[in-house]
Amino acid sequence: MGLIVKKFGGSSVSSMEQIKNIATRVKQKRENGNQVVVVVSAMGDTTDELIQLASFVGSDLSSREMDMLLATGEQQSASLLALTLQSMDCSAVSLTGWQAGIQSDSSYSRARITDITTSRILKELNNDKVVVIAGFQGISPEDDITTLGRGGSDTTAVALAASLNADECIIFTDVEGIYTADPRIVKNASKLKSICYEEMLEMSSLGAVVLQPRAVEFAMLYNVDVKVQSSFNNNSGTVLTEVSKMEKQRVVSGVAHDINCAKVALYDVADRPGIARDLFTTLANNGINVDMVVQSANREDRNDIAFTIESDELERALPVVNILVNELGASGMSYGDKVAKVSIVGAGMQSNPGIAAAMFEALAEENINIHMISTSEIKVSCIIDEEVIEKAVNALHNKFELDNIK
Amino acid sequence: MGLIVKKFGGSSVSSMEQIKNIATRVKQKRENGNQVVVVVSAMGDTTDELIQLASFVGSDLSSREMDMLLATGEQQSASLLALTLQSMDCSAVSLTGWQAGIQSDSSYSRARITDITTSRILKELNNDKVVVIAGFQGISPEDDITTLGRGGSDTTAVALAASLNADECIIFTDVEGIYTADPRIVKNASKLKSICYEEMLEMSSLGAVVLQPRAVEFAMLYNVDVKVQSSFNNNSGTVLTEVSKMEKQRVVSGVAHDINCAKVALYDVADRPGIARDLFTTLANNGINVDMVVQSANREDRNDIAFTIESDELERALPVVNILVNELGASGMSYGDKVAKVSIVGAGMQSNPGIAAAMFEALAEENINIHMISTSEIKVSCIIDEEVIEKAVNALHNKFELDNIK
Repeated sequence: MGLIVKKFGGSSVSSMEQIKNIATRVKQKRENGNQVVVVVSAMGDTTDELIQLASFVGSDLSSREMDMLLATGEQQSASLLALTLQSMDCSAVSLTGWQAGIQSDSSYSRARITDITTSRILKELNNDKVVVIAGFQGISPEDDITTLGRGGSDTTAVALAASLNADECIIFTDVEGIYTADPRIVKNASKLKSICYEEMLEMSSLGAVVLQPRAVEFAMLYNVDVKVQSSFNNNSGTVLTEVSKMEKQRVVSGVAHDINCAKVALYDVADRPGIARDLFTTLANNGINVDMVVQSANREDRNDIAFTIESDELERALPVVNILVNELGASGMSYGDKVAKVSIVGAGMQSNPGIAAAMFEALAEENINIHMISTSEIKVSCIIDEEVIEKAVNALHNKFELDNIK
Repeated sequence: MGLIVKKFGGSSVSSMEQIKNIATRVKQKRENGNQVVVVVSAMGDTTDELIQLASFVGSDLSSREMDMLLATGEQQSASLLALTLQSMDCSAVSLTGWQAGIQSDSSYSRARITDITTSRILKELNNDKVVVIAGFQGISPEDDITTLGRGGSDTTAVALAASLNADECIIFTDVEGIYTADPRIVKNASKLKSICYEEMLEMSSLGAVVLQPRAVEFAMLYNVDVKVQSSFNNNSGTVLTEVSKMEKQRVVSGVAHDINCAKVALYDVADRPGIARDLFTTLANNGINVDMVVQSANREDRNDIAFTIESDELERALPVVNILVNELGASGMSYGDKVAKVSIVGAGMQSNPGIAAAMFEALAEENINIHMISTSEIKVSCIIDEEVIEKAVNALHNKFELDNIK
């Protein structure tokens, strides 16, 4: 008995048939004496269909209006699930983001939840209702509808679990849990029983996007245990939790990869204070998100600076970089988007020296050239050629014996 | 120059192509220096499609949840129209019912607007924006989304025009205006240049539903001139206005008819005070809406009481009536739904005696039997056999020479 938050993604609510399946599962939890809050995404392709409709208008559309449009998808699936629960004699009510008190900032299309006023939800729970909440959306300080970005329903669920001090938060998704590597690439990838917030955060931001990074941040900030499991069967999934609750400390928990990478290098930049600030402030001001940064050791008062960005942003970044080449007195620049990032992640890494060396060795054994290296407390990332990414992921998975991990 | 409220119905926004056409018309008004508020219905069949989805759940669905579901249709068309206006360099913003401050009671699926808080709309107008408002919806005192019933977007538009003290309110629809009779039945029906509120109200409630009766009530209450015209051409439509503004007083303005009628009669009911109250209070408490009531002259302290209801409600009414037959000591009852109502409407009728007689004469000339008669200041209605309704409407249209009316 307790308060449970369950989240079902778009592929779990793509038809009325599936909505009935979900309703059956929700009703069961309710009848076991729990209070249940359900967060739903839009039905199947609804969001894409609405984007398609809007695309007839043109491109470069107002994100304020797009949020207004897209938020209807979750409102529809929420009301349909509430209706279905009611038809099974399970008292239920659906709430939009604003009705559920989900406040956000005004960054349309990628808004961040700032607070949740839970009074309405609590009132409905106290009236013995299952509360079905439209995920992915909030309300701005100007009373406008916002959306939280792709995968935002995860954040809705975790933030609600935190605000409601829920006993359990379960994200039902189309994968079975968190794996040691992408199972489409590594045949013997293992499903993890548990993973700590820090590892998951690195995994998410490194390309293994099972959960929206913002959702993981919320879970970590409010110390919410989040279970990720399949909506199509009852197999146990993966529990996202704090590191101290993990059964066993692992050195490396997984191999992540991301092919949406582009590399930009500036040569012979003057070696004086403030150069890096000038470079990265200018890029940030132009809305270009820099991932890895590497500055080579200087020779004759000149440096080479290389960084990576998302491939999609390369076209937008190049004019900015070209201007900077002149301003910073660089001798030239190069770029390429045929690169990819491979990373190993593990909370135990910080107390185990030699892990990075083992990674480089595994790549060397496969004759894979490393363009850039970046390390943090719990991960090591390498930029390599995109064409060898699958080979690299498998080599690292073997090297750290991840097929036997639990 | 002024403030204009325009309303476009579902058939006027059934495709992105049509939304572009509307946007062009709206932009033109804006560029002529007007402030423009646009009210839109859901795109084409959206509402029916959503009802279809919900029908998979079953019947007898919660109207609170249905309103939550159906309100998304107007939210979608509003944002799509705002996006389209923006793409034409016409500054615009879309608002849901609650964002536009449209407050209603809690009668889900047929809520009544109780008040409009116009501050948000005025703010956007002052920012030089075209304000596109999702029609058909409001917000209840409990902060739940309500819908205003089929045709409710008309009421949204008229209520907004009243609250904003608009200079013009135009309802764009799929007909060219208000006709002296249904043009599908009377080939030479004339389009009226103007019609007064009282006549329109009678016409609407008698079956000529070009405007939702509630919209007409709002227009009358706040003295708003409403123009009804086609969204597909620029032909002048019909202006709904107060009787004193009419160019010419007409005796009869139109013939209305309604085949969604059923007749119920109770025989030999005791002639004592309170019988009618008992009968109609019980029916009202069971949610059955009684239209015409006729009580025959009494003989030997017994009365016959007959009334009409909507055909759709007959099945629900019969068990209630059967119980009442016993309670009221009636000797029996009869019912039938093969009847229809034909009415003549005209504000000038009150000062012209003999109009009812002329109506009965026209029906007699066609050998049409009258089952029930009901009169008010500005209309006379007769219940006749459904099979002769077209003949009756045409006979009356000829009798009062409505083909030449202006």
